[in-house]
Amino acid sequence: MEAPADPHFGRRIRESFERQQAMALIGARLVTVTPGTVEIELPFRDDLTQQKGFVHGGIIGMIADSAAGYAAFSLMPAGCSLVTVEYKMNILAAATGALVARGEVVKAGRTLTVARAEVYAQDRTHVATMQQTLMMLAGRPDHPE
Amino acid sequence: MEAPADPHFGRRIRESFERQQAMALIGARLVTVTPGTVEIELPFRDDLTQQKGFVHGGIIGMIADSAAGYAAFSLMPAGCSLVTVEYKMNILAAATGALVARGEVVKAGRTLTVARAEVYAQDRTHVATMQQTLMMLAGRPDHPE
Amino acid sequence: MEAPADPHFGRRIRESFERQQAMALIGARLVTVTPGTVEIELPFRDDLTQQKGFVHGGIIGMIADSAAGYAAFSLMPAGCSLVTVEYKMNILAAATGALVARGEVVKAGRTLTVARAEVYAQDRTHVATMQQTLMMLAGRPDHPE
Amino acid sequence: MEAPADPHFGRRIRESFERQQAMALIGARLVTVTPGTVEIELPFRDDLTQQKGFVHGGIIGMIADSAAGYAAFSLMPAGCSLVTVEYKMNILAAATGALVARGEVVKAGRTLTVARAEVYAQDRTHVATMQQTLMMLAGRPDHPE
Repeated sequence: MEAPADPHFGRRIRESFERQQAMALIGARLVTVTPGTVEIELPFRDDLTQQKGFVHGGIIGMIADSAAGYAAFSLMPAGCSLVTVEYKMNILAAATGALVARGEVVKAGRTLTVARAEVYAQDRTHVATMQQTLMMLAGRPDHPE
Repeated sequence: MEAPADPHFGRRIRESFERQQAMALIGARLVTVTPGTVEIELPFRDDLTQQKGFVHGGIIGMIADSAAGYAAFSLMPAGCSLVTVEYKMNILAAATGALVARGEVVKAGRTLTVARAEVYAQDRTHVATMQQTLMMLAGRPDHPE
Repeated sequence: MEAPADPHFGRRIRESFERQQAMALIGARLVTVTPGTVEIELPFRDDLTQQKGFVHGGIIGMIADSAAGYAAFSLMPAGCSLVTVEYKMNILAAATGALVARGEVVKAGRTLTVARAEVYAQDRTHVATMQQTLMMLAGRPDHPE
Repeated sequence: MEAPADPHFGRRIRESFERQQAMALIGARLVTVTPGTVEIELPFRDDLTQQKGFVHGGIIGMIADSAAGYAAFSLMPAGCSLVTVEYKMNILAAATGALVARGEVVKAGRTLTVARAEVYAQDRTHVATMQQTLMMLAGRPDHPE
């Protein structure tokens, strides 16, 4: 476990997550926050599915993106914000139930951080794996400017 | 413009899109379907945003994923379905309004198709670019089995 | 450790690696082969560098591509071959010395396998991380046809 | 065609390419440099191949990486350097002869630039497509420090 630059990282991330209206829209919940790792749960709902009845790949991407991003954010100092530069996700199995996305930091750099997220079903099926790059915006607040 | 393997590709895609409940959830609309290209529009809504008030990167990924996927699907024969193997997206600019995602086929193979999607704002700002791999499932229907 | 489909996977991979003339060109060596993991070493040479004197990112990609690909190949049956569908690599640190790439399988599917590779310097600096998709070609030999 | 920040971008790139010893190792040649686009040619050689006799995917990645990177570099001011943050490449066809990689800028940002490269065979077969992120290092020279 890495030492966070901001001892109040947990509260900072929970408040930020609360402002992500898109997470509320899909019913995602922030369940675990430690320095360098974040878990987000997504209960299954019919309105999250694609044409074959599986959870939409983009929805899987949403929780993976947020989990990896907040894992990166947990190690950053207070008073900054971060943006997703890019991510790449492989879908490994069709998602037919509740999911959990676990994000973790691979390399925390001064400007760029590389993070990963693994998405699992409740039976531990490995549903998706994501590799992501984020950029810290120093001195730019994590809320609407 | 490539020749579609199924002359009824347009109807097939529109019906498939209608079954994507996740697209209805976010308010996305299928606007253009030609052989090898598909456009999806997304009006802006507050409940699609992340913590800074921009459209969530995962939401951008959703419309790009579907646009590129249906572009691939437009060239496939009737009676098959396809799955997203993986995608990689760069976010180029913060999205603060309505978006359009334009998907197009890069290479249509027998099993795998590579497609791209470009996402633009209404003022033509280039918001995101995605590269995607899809796999055709021959003889597997494009609806819940 | 997963059970290999071919008990002679080790010999099969070593012989395949020997046919990779590009690995000889850059001086890469196959050092470890187990079911689902493969390690490749690359001693430093001036003629592997880019304009700033670091090992070229594409050279790092070469050993990561081969390590992850052979990790996938180690779990496949005899008599098949495989092709790299795509890979995505983040470069985490400048490489100024010898490297080792460790490939491992994330998900071995019937047609597609997802693998990863981590590249490290001798001082354990994490130099690069790669996520890769491979496709098995059943009944197609792993040598020039 | 975009306006270059440095009118001497062409000479700057040619000199930088000359310092890429890895390009000399594989026999790659810089053939075209304009603001925002760069082309690199690679004659076929047996020692560039993988186990089936095709050009190694990592070698294809090398010329795509350099072509897209120098396309980005062509728009940057004098006196800076740049590093590859990450790239993602789909291999679309087996490469059995000479190749040309064409890099172009998708979005030139202040810190990060997104570029693409397309790799073609001499018969115009589309061999690979790459999406890449680069970071400018202001005030850091483009040679060994």
